[in-house]
Amino acid sequence: MTDVQYMQMALDLAAQAKGQTNPNPLVGAVLVKDGRIVGFGAHLKAGEPHAEVHAFRMAGEHAEGATLYVTLEPCSHHGKTPPCADLVISSKVKKVVVAMTDPNPLVAGNGINRIRAHGIEVEVGVLESQAVALNERFLHNMRTSRPFVVIKTAMTLDGKIAAHTGDSRWITGPDARVAVHQLRNEVDGILVGIGTVRADDPELTTRMPEGGGKHPTRIILDSSLQIEETAKVLDTSIAPTWIITSGGADAEKSARLRARGVQILKSAPHDVAAVLDLLYANGITHLLVEGGATVNGAFLQAGLIDKVMAFIAPKLIGGAGAPTPYAGAGFEKMSQAVTLRDISVTTYGDDICITGYPVYEGEQQ
Amino acid sequence: MTDVQYMQMALDLAAQAKGQTNPNPLVGAVLVKDGRIVGFGAHLKAGEPHAEVHAFRMAGEHAEGATLYVTLEPCSHHGKTPPCADLVISSKVKKVVVAMTDPNPLVAGNGINRIRAHGIEVEVGVLESQAVALNERFLHNMRTSRPFVVIKTAMTLDGKIAAHTGDSRWITGPDARVAVHQLRNEVDGILVGIGTVRADDPELTTRMPEGGGKHPTRIILDSSLQIEETAKVLDTSIAPTWIITSGGADAEKSARLRARGVQILKSAPHDVAAVLDLLYANGITHLLVEGGATVNGAFLQAGLIDKVMAFIAPKLIGGAGAPTPYAGAGFEKMSQAVTLRDISVTTYGDDICITGYPVYEGEQQ
Repeated sequence: MTDVQYMQMALDLAAQAKGQTNPNPLVGAVLVKDGRIVGFGAHLKAGEPHAEVHAFRMAGEHAEGATLYVTLEPCSHHGKTPPCADLVISSKVKKVVVAMTDPNPLVAGNGINRIRAHGIEVEVGVLESQAVALNERFLHNMRTSRPFVVIKTAMTLDGKIAAHTGDSRWITGPDARVAVHQLRNEVDGILVGIGTVRADDPELTTRMPEGGGKHPTRIILDSSLQIEETAKVLDTSIAPTWIITSGGADAEKSARLRARGVQILKSAPHDVAAVLDLLYANGITHLLVEGGATVNGAFLQAGLIDKVMAFIAPKLIGGAGAPTPYAGAGFEKMSQAVTLRDISVTTYGDDICITGYPVYEGEQQ
Repeated sequence: MTDVQYMQMALDLAAQAKGQTNPNPLVGAVLVKDGRIVGFGAHLKAGEPHAEVHAFRMAGEHAEGATLYVTLEPCSHHGKTPPCADLVISSKVKKVVVAMTDPNPLVAGNGINRIRAHGIEVEVGVLESQAVALNERFLHNMRTSRPFVVIKTAMTLDGKIAAHTGDSRWITGPDARVAVHQLRNEVDGILVGIGTVRADDPELTTRMPEGGGKHPTRIILDSSLQIEETAKVLDTSIAPTWIITSGGADAEKSARLRARGVQILKSAPHDVAAVLDLLYANGITHLLVEGGATVNGAFLQAGLIDKVMAFIAPKLIGGAGAPTPYAGAGFEKMSQAVTLRDISVTTYGDDICITGYPVYEGEQQ
């Protein structure tokens, strides 16, 4: 097997833990000696051992003289666990192959430098673009100190998210809905506006077809605390619920909601940047925005969408007054529309999902 | 080579004449003797020889004892040309392989029966589904006595056909626009509402990148003859222009337009079925509807769309008031939406085109 194949194995191991490791990155490691795999591992949960630690434990004495394939530069700092660079050195591997350097300012090349200083060969950049894609959420967090924002929408082939009457069940089919729950399982926060809560009374939980899954924190933008106290999303025995209000809200209602375990956070719900700062400060690294149209429009106007997943059902409903996935004021000219890069198209049953990354003015493509 | 490969060649030859043969079907023929191709042909234009005639002319004396591969049952009637079944018989071929029977009630198995009655073996059904797909327009004409209606739309990934200001240049990129001109080259009529003429002043001509191409007849739904006399589409030196009015329109304006070569047809422009009957009676077999939203919505509501081509540009423009591709009243419930079958997804540069066929109540999938 080649370097690329071993690194691919490390990336595949890393990807298994999607959604489990936040705020940490996804990392996989494989140890190979004399053409034989002697150990492998992945980082599974923040505070638990890094990928390299698992791999070295599995390899035991076979690590000496082996090659380590690791998807992210070994860390050089004492976090919740000791530096992996030291473990690499003491294990006496012959060579380290790294997919990408760690953008965390506490590491940022220091891990690789420390290993090289001990005479161990280090090669960097094998399957780097795959490693970057795998950790898009983590890299965004490091670069911006904000959550990575994914907006998911579902519309008909004529651009509607509901009939003109508001009826929207169901736009997409079961396969697409499973994909959405998979996505909820990967994020740590899900955000909707109060309009969606009042219209649909959603639970905003993760329901995997085989059961299990991790519920994201439910975040409601509700400036004047209009939420009905019977709303399903207020049942905090299932998952945490945060409401973002603009302050000055009904103090008694706030107190009643707090008593039920709901967190009331103060911010200007229409200031998307401030909301994201607040959420990141409270530990949300990966945010799924499920709208509705007004909230989606506000994120678009603010230029703070990092990834778009647009599900399209091959059906036509018509209706001049039927709502579309992004509302708000909108841009004046078609040439001002935010274009997406790195488009991919996936089918889920009869439904189609178009995924892409918005390119903002002044940003390098 | 196998029967399937020869039939594929015949289908490929037939497809070369897309848009040239209306109202006739696309037909290709290949003659094979002792494993060698001795002749082939395609039907190129109504009134000109059928595919079989070209193939037999090419083969000359080699036709005797050969196998004829033909994508549609040889005709048995005297139309603008003599019956091909008689030519097949007099050419003394050994065997005929046919992809599909001819649904034209004047043929409908008679061609095959006549050939078999002369002791020639006939096999039917090789690559039949491809032959059906190739002639979707012709088969629809035969079944319904109406034009085959294709609606083409172009929208953003958030379902808009323009900014809230009406600005719509450009939604899709150059590759998608070439595909639209290719489509115009294949149809014999292109239909828009007066709103589109007034908003965009389009020419509605075919502009192929390499030049050439066939302009469809431009058909404007304009119940009260509101069209501005400076509209580009009124230049009938480029292509024919028909205006459908509800009658009672300004007689002087009608006369002026007629003097410029415009045909004024009377119908109820909002009665889509009546419009289609009128168009078919006037020789339109393949109609491209390019909207706008009100016209598209009327066709949807009438259940008279036969094929949908929805171009989607990977960009977001927002705007609660921005228009969507199908307007009109729309259905009340999402469950009433018209679903499409046989979905295909094609990319044109960064743009995506989703194609499908509406399934109407009571219709077999």
